[in-house]
Amino acid sequence: MDIFETISTRFSYRGAFTDQLVPREDLIKIVQAGIDAPSGCNAQSTEFIIVDKPELIASIAQLLTDRPVCKTAKGLIICVCDKTPAYGKLSFFIEDCAAATQNMLLAINALGYASVWLDGVIRGNVGEEIGKLLKIPTEKEVRIMLPVGVPLNKSKPNLKKSFNERARFA
Amino acid sequence: MDIFETISTRFSYRGAFTDQLVPREDLIKIVQAGIDAPSGCNAQSTEFIIVDKPELIASIAQLLTDRPVCKTAKGLIICVCDKTPAYGKLSFFIEDCAAATQNMLLAINALGYASVWLDGVIRGNVGEEIGKLLKIPTEKEVRIMLPVGVPLNKSKPNLKKSFNERARFA
Repeated sequence: MDIFETISTRFSYRGAFTDQLVPREDLIKIVQAGIDAPSGCNAQSTEFIIVDKPELIASIAQLLTDRPVCKTAKGLIICVCDKTPAYGKLSFFIEDCAAATQNMLLAINALGYASVWLDGVIRGNVGEEIGKLLKIPTEKEVRIMLPVGVPLNKSKPNLKKSFNERARFA
Repeated sequence: MDIFETISTRFSYRGAFTDQLVPREDLIKIVQAGIDAPSGCNAQSTEFIIVDKPELIASIAQLLTDRPVCKTAKGLIICVCDKTPAYGKLSFFIEDCAAATQNMLLAINALGYASVWLDGVIRGNVGEEIGKLLKIPTEKEVRIMLPVGVPLNKSKPNLKKSFNERARFA
């Protein structure tokens, strides 16, 4: 799929997924897109845990009160951050993780799946519980989760402000 | 260009650019890719200032001690963040700006240009001076800058750890 089409058609999906499985080959392709993202000082601070076992998906979905997008996901990609500063006192792990996530969302769209960037909802307790289930060392942070599957209903991107409301030539 | 090829061939470029100009049409296409990125609660917290006037590029490059990638850039895209929390006390402006930046880096690569994610080097004083030049309200933050041009020497992505060192199935 053309990059500009992939970017402009990506949408945040919060509904249920169909029963169609997501092969590991595709999950690997998606996560490789995340690995290929840049990171501050090339610190590669993001790790990716891929969950495709139904029981483990169900345990994690329960922590998010069984919201449909998690409960029916065929894969969950969980981004875990190493918060060690990359340069002096400067940390870029939030940026690193976000850039990797954006690459993965594009890969997900290009392969015909859908997802939503789950972030605020896993801050704090939920992220810590996911970390325990996945045996993540407590000094690392479970930061972003992407449920993956074939959407029951294709959707459209959120409405956005126009170019002239967001950008200008100086 | 195919999305996976665009993702895997993107590289951080710190060298000089050729004399070839970057038409506004292309700068608009690049920034539109940034606008199309998701943002927490769809707050669209990132604004984009596009600099393509040689004198203004020179003034900004001076603040970065004339590093070649800025001094010879044919365009600078400057991301400005609205730091207002998007949901309760939660802010996503760093993630929003990073996702937009990643989309723009991919667009830049797809169009045959190169760039580098300038972030840590414009934190603090330099960002504030850029903000003054561009008349950015002081409550907003100049966060990321992307120089754009045709690279004198095509380069390769930074070496990265393997899939198995960064990812695992749970």
